[in-house]
Amino acid sequence: MGPSPIPDAIARAIASVEAPDPDWAGRAADRQARLTMPPGALGRLLDLGRQLAGLQRTDRPMGHPALVAVFAADHGVAEAGVSAYPQAVTGQMVANYLAGGAAVNVLARRAGAEVRVVDLGVRHLPEGLKGHLCRPIRAGTSNLLEGPAMTRTEAYRAVAVGLDLADRWAGREGFRVIALGEMGIGNTTTAAILAAALTGAGVDRVVGRGTGVDDERLARKVRVVERALALHLGSDRDPWEILARLGGFEILGLAGLAIGAARHRALVVLDGLISGVAGLVAARLCPPAAESFVGSHLGPEPGHAVVLGALGLDPLLSLGLRLGEGTGAALALPMIGSAADILREMATFESAAVSGPTRAEGPDPTALAPRSRDRE
Amino acid sequence: MGPSPIPDAIARAIASVEAPDPDWAGRAADRQARLTMPPGALGRLLDLGRQLAGLQRTDRPMGHPALVAVFAADHGVAEAGVSAYPQAVTGQMVANYLAGGAAVNVLARRAGAEVRVVDLGVRHLPEGLKGHLCRPIRAGTSNLLEGPAMTRTEAYRAVAVGLDLADRWAGREGFRVIALGEMGIGNTTTAAILAAALTGAGVDRVVGRGTGVDDERLARKVRVVERALALHLGSDRDPWEILARLGGFEILGLAGLAIGAARHRALVVLDGLISGVAGLVAARLCPPAAESFVGSHLGPEPGHAVVLGALGLDPLLSLGLRLGEGTGAALALPMIGSAADILREMATFESAAVSGPTRAEGPDPTALAPRSRDRE
Repeated sequence: MGPSPIPDAIARAIASVEAPDPDWAGRAADRQARLTMPPGALGRLLDLGRQLAGLQRTDRPMGHPALVAVFAADHGVAEAGVSAYPQAVTGQMVANYLAGGAAVNVLARRAGAEVRVVDLGVRHLPEGLKGHLCRPIRAGTSNLLEGPAMTRTEAYRAVAVGLDLADRWAGREGFRVIALGEMGIGNTTTAAILAAALTGAGVDRVVGRGTGVDDERLARKVRVVERALALHLGSDRDPWEILARLGGFEILGLAGLAIGAARHRALVVLDGLISGVAGLVAARLCPPAAESFVGSHLGPEPGHAVVLGALGLDPLLSLGLRLGEGTGAALALPMIGSAADILREMATFESAAVSGPTRAEGPDPTALAPRSRDRE
Repeated sequence: MGPSPIPDAIARAIASVEAPDPDWAGRAADRQARLTMPPGALGRLLDLGRQLAGLQRTDRPMGHPALVAVFAADHGVAEAGVSAYPQAVTGQMVANYLAGGAAVNVLARRAGAEVRVVDLGVRHLPEGLKGHLCRPIRAGTSNLLEGPAMTRTEAYRAVAVGLDLADRWAGREGFRVIALGEMGIGNTTTAAILAAALTGAGVDRVVGRGTGVDDERLARKVRVVERALALHLGSDRDPWEILARLGGFEILGLAGLAIGAARHRALVVLDGLISGVAGLVAARLCPPAAESFVGSHLGPEPGHAVVLGALGLDPLLSLGLRLGEGTGAALALPMIGSAADILREMATFESAAVSGPTRAEGPDPTALAPRSRDRE
């Protein structure tokens, strides 16, 4: 008996993703050239504006409403002692997100974005929590040092959760920007393993200190990644088999969300290493989806640069952020909003009666009266 | 007869600037260490938070209200053909700022900041403008290739305009963050000359394409900067003499604003090359003021890195912006607001009942009930 086949709903969703429309991106470029500034003077903001225009099929795109999705799940590999924090922190932080007290809540509020929290498989959740979406696959993955992290069926289910929520958020609710946040003690280890498996990068290039492990735990983390790759990577394994053996529920869920958001023409904002790996998984399953992505920031976790490089993304910010949760993505949202605002709200040279550039030595084409007020 | 002495009001203002209070910055650091994130995980945002705390003498600082000040003036050196745009554009852009159609208006709106426009000496101002502050020193500086750009008395007056507006804005009106924006055709040339004069950097390190001049005009700009330095720099000249000979009204006005804002404990946000040179002028006149500065972005204009380096500032953003007006500073405002929000709004490990880090191999200090809900 072969592996369980990809469910039709997932295959159909993946097949229906279209890249942004270059024609509309071109029209946005034409408009940008007429706005009251020297050509290209807003740099990366103009690239973002054209990307939004191509996605939304308009030269007057919107950078809102924006949503930060925080997908949380636990990781069996945490048993190996790869994090500075106990596993209970995953659930405690879910409670913190729901109470509005975490960094991502603060940054999303400033950016005018909503935060939605989804439980994909948190092991210990404090009692009486309200306001999160319950989509658990299982109460944490299995320890991938002892066997596959999950079954193929569980991998499909995790991706399907993300696709389904994209239908709701980017489809029915109309969010135009979706930021990928995550929480899961141990998930920088899972992400490092996936980054190495998907890019072929060496273990030293993908493993870092995560939330801040000491030298001893860093060495342990390196050994864990090496063992996981030796145990599970075989040349004959298809992508879904690798994802099931090495994945995390929140990472595969976010990959599904990224594909679904791209399908609904929303901009997908990647955050740190884990969120970036989710983007890379999405791009491998569905290459056109990657054109809907933007890298919000580059953090010190070494695998982050590897993953963004594999996606061809040049991150907007470099502020030494290493928190995850979607915090870097939330910080980039005002920039994304601004990129859209520029196309919608700025005056053109014509509308504002501002003179354009002259040729060298050319005459001054303007003929304004000298000012009449006494300048002293 | 010697040079006219520094007016008492300016000397007193400069002498009264205090650096941020390291004690309050330390208390903010203590608070940051208790917030629900791994130590230091928000990188540069935490530095910003401590700077605001030291300025405002509180561990719960505010990043608002924020103001973008756009100081506009014309430059006699524009006669030398150093810009791609005619001089009339300075006044036309003032009209554009007042109508709300320029990039800085759009970005400030998104950031929830006000824009205030000040005429320090615009040569051609369209008729009937309303809403700007009229503080003209003269209708543009003299061409520094033919003599000093301004008199010492004019230099004092320009700085005094900035000091006076800081008293109004950061003093009476209570703005806590003041971004330095500018407009003046030809002012990247003036700024490059000042940058070379103040830092000793070679001409090739400070001259760039400004709003986008071609090779011919770039070569001309290099010759203009060289001639200006040869004409005006002598080893026996004091700083005010250099500022008068080489300055621009908007640049000296912004330097005064930076000193005055620092005096009122506001954060001063530098923008591009010109705004950075204004910050450097302020720092040379009043060294403690520089500790109130933050570099918002690094642009491609080569002198920008030279100036930020001389100020010891590591810019927050690097987005290829080369527009000026305060656009980069406006883009950084949500980050500054967020840095303050983090200190005011985030939960602590204690308040949110989140477990702290464990020692390697240590026991799990948490004792949560296993989740009771059926996970399927």
